[in-house]
Amino acid sequence: MKAILVIADGMADRPVKELDMKTPLEASHKPTLNQLAKTGVCGIIDPISPGRPPGSDTATLALLGYDALKVYSGRGALEALGLGVTVSKGDIAFRCNFATANKDLVVLDRRAGRIATEEAAKLAESLQKIRLEKPVRTSFLFKNTIQHRAVLVLRGPGWSTAISDSDPGEVGERVQEIRPLGKSRNAVLTAKVVNELSSEFRRVLENHPVNRNRIEQGEPPANIILCRGAGTVPQIEPLSKIYRINAACVGATALVKGVCKAAGMELIHVSGATGTFQTDYLAKAKMAAQALEQCDFVLLHVKAPDVASHDRNVRQKIEAIERIDNMLSHLLKNVDISSVCVAVTADHTTSVLTGRHEGDPVPIVIAGSNVRRDDVAEFGERSCAKGGLNRIRGLDLMPLLMNLIGKTRIFGA
Amino acid sequence: MKAILVIADGMADRPVKELDMKTPLEASHKPTLNQLAKTGVCGIIDPISPGRPPGSDTATLALLGYDALKVYSGRGALEALGLGVTVSKGDIAFRCNFATANKDLVVLDRRAGRIATEEAAKLAESLQKIRLEKPVRTSFLFKNTIQHRAVLVLRGPGWSTAISDSDPGEVGERVQEIRPLGKSRNAVLTAKVVNELSSEFRRVLENHPVNRNRIEQGEPPANIILCRGAGTVPQIEPLSKIYRINAACVGATALVKGVCKAAGMELIHVSGATGTFQTDYLAKAKMAAQALEQCDFVLLHVKAPDVASHDRNVRQKIEAIERIDNMLSHLLKNVDISSVCVAVTADHTTSVLTGRHEGDPVPIVIAGSNVRRDDVAEFGERSCAKGGLNRIRGLDLMPLLMNLIGKTRIFGA
Repeated sequence: MKAILVIADGMADRPVKELDMKTPLEASHKPTLNQLAKTGVCGIIDPISPGRPPGSDTATLALLGYDALKVYSGRGALEALGLGVTVSKGDIAFRCNFATANKDLVVLDRRAGRIATEEAAKLAESLQKIRLEKPVRTSFLFKNTIQHRAVLVLRGPGWSTAISDSDPGEVGERVQEIRPLGKSRNAVLTAKVVNELSSEFRRVLENHPVNRNRIEQGEPPANIILCRGAGTVPQIEPLSKIYRINAACVGATALVKGVCKAAGMELIHVSGATGTFQTDYLAKAKMAAQALEQCDFVLLHVKAPDVASHDRNVRQKIEAIERIDNMLSHLLKNVDISSVCVAVTADHTTSVLTGRHEGDPVPIVIAGSNVRRDDVAEFGERSCAKGGLNRIRGLDLMPLLMNLIGKTRIFGA
Repeated sequence: MKAILVIADGMADRPVKELDMKTPLEASHKPTLNQLAKTGVCGIIDPISPGRPPGSDTATLALLGYDALKVYSGRGALEALGLGVTVSKGDIAFRCNFATANKDLVVLDRRAGRIATEEAAKLAESLQKIRLEKPVRTSFLFKNTIQHRAVLVLRGPGWSTAISDSDPGEVGERVQEIRPLGKSRNAVLTAKVVNELSSEFRRVLENHPVNRNRIEQGEPPANIILCRGAGTVPQIEPLSKIYRINAACVGATALVKGVCKAAGMELIHVSGATGTFQTDYLAKAKMAAQALEQCDFVLLHVKAPDVASHDRNVRQKIEAIERIDNMLSHLLKNVDISSVCVAVTADHTTSVLTGRHEGDPVPIVIAGSNVRRDDVAEFGERSCAKGGLNRIRGLDLMPLLMNLIGKTRIFGA
């Protein structure tokens, strides 16, 4: 027996007035999800704990069976891992933005006009040439990824994640000086180094030909690097060791891929998977079905519903869910349900009303030959709450799936 | 108020094709269990945690209210306790089998042809005469129990349970040398002593008149002792201290009796209770009802459904459940339900398809004058999932029962 877990990012939601107090999931046309609900066992999941809004990183850690409250060690290293950057034990990584600030360091654009990836690459190349000798000689990696996004890794040991962000999070606010949170010597040093590096970055960016050209073209210059989410790689046992399985991830979002990498999963590249609404859903379904031939467990992650939710776009969220339903229909045609356990859930609730992650539970369905099928006939936040799984925690899902496919070990005699 | 907890070992199961995707419990005729469901409150229990398959030892510890993940310390000492052997703090005990091996120490029969208890007793008597002086002078107890079963207790202190088993678990495999798990001095010494003792056992068994006679009769000689499940007595507070109750156990299985003994419960002997399918169900019901006259809490354990499940015998499992239903009917005739809270559950799921303990939840019903009766009308894995108790953990059950009979203390003011 094998298992596939489909995570529709931010798919769960709250009742929406313009949908007659249905949620986007409830209001969508989703024959495949409903069919899964009819043949499977349903329930609701608190990804972390009731009422606690998770990030996609902590929720994915939990859905893979880890106790995120204990093992989560910041976003930066996970995102870097997902981007293919090597982050070793002792290293500390940051999620960075190319951004635009005025001379008083007030942020004017947190994404530097969503600068083109090619331009960002040229800037990153110049930043990587910096040699930092004060306050300590520092080995670092600065790498741009897509558009304004980048990662910074300080090679360890000796660093601390107990520091604040330089990213103020809002336009119109000043770039923050990074401060140690607490008095540890490592935190004080880390804050000093990142502040020093940030000011070197500013110096190089200010007169960079790319930025001079952008100003000429009337585009906001990428004249500052904002850092946030200082993190180390979580020290977790790989899934292969815990359950003696081969596991793979099909997904495009760096953060989720990073979590999967940390869990020792193989990352499968899908050309056409973009982590956006326009992602190639069917290519993902195909790759996931193929991966299942080699692996015991596949995680298939789709970012689209979360993007629509953050944009407060109800119609697009419904359409994303309907495309996922269609993706599942293709997946099920290529998977032998008698030997594969299929689970579908969301990593968290993202409200199209608030545009934020919320702490409401998410629906879950598990279909497969071993499940105690219940009488839930529709896949939705409320219908699943009446299901045979009742209410479980995110970290309980993986043991449940592994139990259904015979990959758990007895505790006791 | 008093309480009785009936544990039907391994009664819960998964849907079975030949039963039209019902579970054996769902497919069985069980008027008394259904009547209890109708008058009580139902739910499902994860004995340890969702998806985690428990042994009968860890599950019973949990159902008695203990955190098995914290207090469980191996099978051997519990089984020895249940057999009436004194195991003190510092002692270490093993579950042993009389077995048959060839001269290359490949196991030919893990039960030495299910050797008669009388023959095993003669062998055990000879083994107990061994004096071990190397690598250290060792005081031990070797006791046969029923057929091929036996226990070995090393008198402490100075031992460690962090050692591997000599029992390979499978016919056709070589007897394993016991290895220390880790580098602790006590583990290294314990492994050495048990290996030395095992080879002394072999020496005595090889030319023993009992075995010479077995070979003459064409029966497999009991020429080797297999050891497994090194354990110490769990350090737990007795139920009498936690809840200020008198508690007793009616059951025949050594492992479960051992858990009850460790919890400070009185063990009640039932002549005719065998721990097998042929056990005297009505004698057990009678003894449990009698015990309730003296005690606040009685645990009534029936092994039969688990035995049938391990044998993958669907029909026998259904019959065992129906006999338990009949047993309950007799019990209820002899118990005043207005002053006794009656709970029925299983310690774990044992699948008739896999023949193994599985991590699926088990159904629970609690009937009694104080319960918030729900509208569940049938006792089954799925019907109970809709009950008023929802989904709880094994270690929550005992506090719930004690609460219903007024034996809990307020936390706070």
